[in-house]
Amino acid sequence: MSDARRWFELPSPFRMKRGGELAGARLAYETWGELDAARGNAIVILTGLSPSAHAASNAEDPSPGWWEDIVGPGKAIDTNRWFVICVNTLGSCKGSTGPADVNPASGEPYRLVFPDLTLEDAANAAYELVRGLGIKRLACLLGNSMGGMTALAWLAQHPGSARTHVSISTAPQAQPFAIAIRSLQREAIRLDPNWNNGRYDDERYPEAGMSIARKLGVITYRSAMEWVGRFARIRLDSDQRDDDPFGFEFQVESYLAGHARRFVRGFDPNSYLYLSRASDWFDLAEHGGGSVDAALARLDVERALVIGVETDILFPLTQQQQIADGLRAGGAEVDFVALDSPQGHDAFLVDTARFGAAIAGFLAAR
Amino acid sequence: MSDARRWFELPSPFRMKRGGELAGARLAYETWGELDAARGNAIVILTGLSPSAHAASNAEDPSPGWWEDIVGPGKAIDTNRWFVICVNTLGSCKGSTGPADVNPASGEPYRLVFPDLTLEDAANAAYELVRGLGIKRLACLLGNSMGGMTALAWLAQHPGSARTHVSISTAPQAQPFAIAIRSLQREAIRLDPNWNNGRYDDERYPEAGMSIARKLGVITYRSAMEWVGRFARIRLDSDQRDDDPFGFEFQVESYLAGHARRFVRGFDPNSYLYLSRASDWFDLAEHGGGSVDAALARLDVERALVIGVETDILFPLTQQQQIADGLRAGGAEVDFVALDSPQGHDAFLVDTARFGAAIAGFLAAR
Repeated sequence: MSDARRWFELPSPFRMKRGGELAGARLAYETWGELDAARGNAIVILTGLSPSAHAASNAEDPSPGWWEDIVGPGKAIDTNRWFVICVNTLGSCKGSTGPADVNPASGEPYRLVFPDLTLEDAANAAYELVRGLGIKRLACLLGNSMGGMTALAWLAQHPGSARTHVSISTAPQAQPFAIAIRSLQREAIRLDPNWNNGRYDDERYPEAGMSIARKLGVITYRSAMEWVGRFARIRLDSDQRDDDPFGFEFQVESYLAGHARRFVRGFDPNSYLYLSRASDWFDLAEHGGGSVDAALARLDVERALVIGVETDILFPLTQQQQIADGLRAGGAEVDFVALDSPQGHDAFLVDTARFGAAIAGFLAAR
Repeated sequence: MSDARRWFELPSPFRMKRGGELAGARLAYETWGELDAARGNAIVILTGLSPSAHAASNAEDPSPGWWEDIVGPGKAIDTNRWFVICVNTLGSCKGSTGPADVNPASGEPYRLVFPDLTLEDAANAAYELVRGLGIKRLACLLGNSMGGMTALAWLAQHPGSARTHVSISTAPQAQPFAIAIRSLQREAIRLDPNWNNGRYDDERYPEAGMSIARKLGVITYRSAMEWVGRFARIRLDSDQRDDDPFGFEFQVESYLAGHARRFVRGFDPNSYLYLSRASDWFDLAEHGGGSVDAALARLDVERALVIGVETDILFPLTQQQQIADGLRAGGAEVDFVALDSPQGHDAFLVDTARFGAAIAGFLAAR
């Protein structure tokens, strides 16, 4: 399989917010386009919980990326103009160091001895990467979902390090509904006997717990409105069903099962737990003396684009509005875009026409 | 423990919609107030998935019921005026015959040989009870949540059998978002090794699966808006926490755990599966030649009150509006009340002041 990933060795030890540290850790990332001579045209993309650094196809890896419609030559994030860097989050399992990797101190996988991970750590790791590439100030720091929280953590710790900021379907702090959902996802994994306190392997793998976690994710990433139009009460054909009296009967159930099947073995369960908990812990108010608004006012960006979706139940529009208002109060020129896309939280992955238009317009302005 | 339940023996065999039948089945119910000489003052309450027939305290059982604020002398459903009957759903485990009861054919509990159960069956059983009490026409048929669907199934099968109808936070057919949630709840139970294809006992009980199912229920019964105000990011005291690195940390997690603890051993898991699946199956369109609206137009009630809540994500307001419009098209005089209670689907159990006022006003009109 072709692989466009590059690797960045983090300073060792890499010290973390809650007191732990990592030795010999690295980040996986991919890039598109060329860094200009002034090193002033760099855009960093920070991802949601599960995507890899492969946001789009490139020469080394022509397979479509998770944001293929947005990133590329002539697209909304135009790689003819911008040098684009997408980072696999620290703690993930798509190349960056995470719980599934070998702990050099023991020669064994970290599993649950991986240090407590926060989004501040993920942000600092990505910041080190950018500094390592010789870039002092980003043209734009962009984050989606968990990546949006990570971007806020980045700017709070390194104000002024990005000229502009694009914040998409994210949160300045985790709210109780989102915490409840993520807590239940973690519980489903932890209750799976095969999780075995993090000591699973391919033979004994917490498949059931991961499946429940993923399905609950998909339910909260989309919207009821979209599904009424898409699935209504359409039933599976009899040859798609099994004999289990409580087996799947409706298309929406099979859709969720397909999502779970594609995810379960492709994402490390311990990594999922660490990143999920990091999302719950995130509270920008810690960087503003207890006030989210105070923290937002200090991020020091010139311009910002904040996009939210009315049907998003996990990262509600009110939170996007709060980010926009807070940045504006800090002196940034802010475009706030509320979309009525039916796809809920996932809209940025699906309704790329409208997201792309908003992002393209923002990046075109100087 | 005091017990106000009465028992009604269903016709035996009791034939069911999907072809099965029950021998020697019975319903548990409770009553308040006195049936008048003309037998014209009876109100039936059909419940959500989990409540018992104990809607309110009475002489035989002074413990508070699940709708204590609504049902009683001088309350919104005034038992000085009305003869109120609350029915435990067929298939439940609170007295009415369900999967946990002994199958007279085998002398063993039914478990998964309990026949396929639909809300039409639950409605017909309750209808038989009312006929058995000598009541030809109800003053009012009232249903909440799953009980609201059961009430629609009742009226579709016995049009004209209620003079008025109160429909609360329910659905004329299960929509895919609600199906997805319930399917995942059932899956959590079925994946619990202790479920054991329905052959659990007190020693080996699907506690983990039931806990996940209940927590997911509570998350979807309430609203994100309520929880922002109620829990925000309040953390548990250190003495409320355990050493598990992924253990509960936020109050909202402990709140969900408390709900699960109170529910898990109090409700039969197989009964839960049967009633949950019956809810997914419900589609009033089956009674209207494929059209929900046609079915609603035939229910033949004189007046109806339809109440919905804007923050309800499980039974959205659009579905309440559809019920109101359909009943109106059928010639009923309809009051539609959309409440902005923050408690979501559960508001009818919590915001009893506003629900009570709407119900009282409706019942006072003649």
